[in-house]
Amino acid sequence: MSDLKLNFLEVYTVLKSELLNDLDFEFTDDARQWVERMLDYNVPGGKLNRGLSVIDSYNFLKEGKELTSEEVFQASSLGWCIEWLQAYFLVLDDIMDGSHTRRGQPCWFRLPKVGMIAANDGILLRNHIPRILKNHFRGKPYYVDLLELFNEVEFQTASGQMIDLITTLVGEKDLSKYSLSIHRRIVQYKTAYYSFYLPVACALLMAGENLDNHVNVKNILIEMGIYFQVQDDYLDCFADPEVLGKIGTDIQDFKCSWLVVKALEHCNEEQKKLLHENYGKDDPACVAKVKALYNDLKLEDVYLEYEKKTYEKLINSIEAQPSKAVQAVLKSFLAKIYKRQK
Amino acid sequence: MSDLKLNFLEVYTVLKSELLNDLDFEFTDDARQWVERMLDYNVPGGKLNRGLSVIDSYNFLKEGKELTSEEVFQASSLGWCIEWLQAYFLVLDDIMDGSHTRRGQPCWFRLPKVGMIAANDGILLRNHIPRILKNHFRGKPYYVDLLELFNEVEFQTASGQMIDLITTLVGEKDLSKYSLSIHRRIVQYKTAYYSFYLPVACALLMAGENLDNHVNVKNILIEMGIYFQVQDDYLDCFADPEVLGKIGTDIQDFKCSWLVVKALEHCNEEQKKLLHENYGKDDPACVAKVKALYNDLKLEDVYLEYEKKTYEKLINSIEAQPSKAVQAVLKSFLAKIYKRQK
Repeated sequence: MSDLKLNFLEVYTVLKSELLNDLDFEFTDDARQWVERMLDYNVPGGKLNRGLSVIDSYNFLKEGKELTSEEVFQASSLGWCIEWLQAYFLVLDDIMDGSHTRRGQPCWFRLPKVGMIAANDGILLRNHIPRILKNHFRGKPYYVDLLELFNEVEFQTASGQMIDLITTLVGEKDLSKYSLSIHRRIVQYKTAYYSFYLPVACALLMAGENLDNHVNVKNILIEMGIYFQVQDDYLDCFADPEVLGKIGTDIQDFKCSWLVVKALEHCNEEQKKLLHENYGKDDPACVAKVKALYNDLKLEDVYLEYEKKTYEKLINSIEAQPSKAVQAVLKSFLAKIYKRQK
Repeated sequence: MSDLKLNFLEVYTVLKSELLNDLDFEFTDDARQWVERMLDYNVPGGKLNRGLSVIDSYNFLKEGKELTSEEVFQASSLGWCIEWLQAYFLVLDDIMDGSHTRRGQPCWFRLPKVGMIAANDGILLRNHIPRILKNHFRGKPYYVDLLELFNEVEFQTASGQMIDLITTLVGEKDLSKYSLSIHRRIVQYKTAYYSFYLPVACALLMAGENLDNHVNVKNILIEMGIYFQVQDDYLDCFADPEVLGKIGTDIQDFKCSWLVVKALEHCNEEQKKLLHENYGKDDPACVAKVKALYNDLKLEDVYLEYEKKTYEKLINSIEAQPSKAVQAVLKSFLAKIYKRQK
């Protein structure tokens, strides 16, 4: 494990210990143990990309000046707030989707002792964020901006989740509800704000910037977040499962994937009928028919063309940014995802 | 309906319409309809006591000076934030408890079209609070205090709910976990902060007060909140169901009620055995045995003595407050609950 990641994990230990000794709540021993176990199970076990990217981004904004240990701790704390936010969404999403596994272990609510208490644990995770912000940023001039930023991004994510749920779950499976514009809206709100915009916005606030002056940066990061999710949708079907580390099930799950949206856009009446009949069925023969259709429609080529165009557009927008430091932040995000295979 | 309540409900309509046209999210028609239906179903249907008491309290703090229409609107908005918070807790609590009805209608998550989407709707309700605060209080000197107040109270409520859940749900039904101190802790955090302290704290902030100077007021309101819940527990068993408007089920539900805690405190070994054998069983014979034991132990008298002592203590603490206006606020809360029968 890199020193950077080790140091980041040490900050987790500090933040956790502060939360377990929060003076605004008299813990019982049982309660303290419960929260500690819940945090360890749900917060630090992911790839930590979102959290680590706050420190990365802040480093670029400081243009090579070495960070003080206080700055590293603060950027790490904001990174952890994003990881906490993510844990909160995942715990509740898994309940809503009835999922079974997450990050290679059973979903938290699937543990026999947990069950529906997981919903309240999700709420607790969410409530830890303003506790962390209060503990470490209360005196800062950007404290209220941080509170508003996390509120805004949480609102947008929950709203995106709502559109996803009411589009894909309510009523019968109805492919005619799927379109590029609904796909874009779900992805933009449900994923892009918190995964791409939020880490950079945190770093900008720490660097003393006013977020109102960085609407372009926001828009570029949202576009990158959408591109990232389109990749995800593409890889779910076309990646080598060995490389991807999982077997995609978007077709069986009737997901509003970029692929099915593009298929609907390019298909003739007969192919549309095939799609309606076979999409969203947990039957290997149906899945195979959908995949064959994707191949007939040359969706791999459509995707490669999309990736090329998107990359060019993003690079152009990034290079139009006045600040070289901001350009560096955005380019480092783009480099991490361009042509990724997993 | 009183003019006060009518005016309060008009503010709901304004706030709702602002949320349905929030510029930080591009609503689809489906999404807008969903949120409107969800709000109307879950937010305004309660007794609205918590919300209305913000306006009441602010009135007392202004010592008879008539409120401007702007002040009424603002106090009402804060009142609605508390009702929104309550709706959020209830939607999620009902999922966690597997409840069937709420306020005389099916629980939101029981509606066939809703189901687990209710968990995200709870999250949305919660997210509406900072939106309302931002829309109406952003320029105020106490804006950041409001954000922190709602964060703190939500954290305490969720923590209280956690202790309740892990005490009453985890593992087998184990009466030996119940005690006066655990009862007090659950009630204090789960109910008293948001139902009693929060409305007054909102009014104090609007009146320009610093909450750090009102720790005594907070403590008095917490004591009142605990008294209120003890009444609830008492009425669940001893009130006339006709007057109460429902039939209590705390005994069947194995609730950590003040009554069972007091029974455990006063009973001999034989009676304790009876309690262990019959508490928490959904069988009328068992319930009858527990009620007979409560009568043998004269719990009605124990309660009346508790109520008398608590009332005296509260009056003494209230009259020790330096501000007559604050005294008036606290006395009006106490008058509303003292010797209540429902």
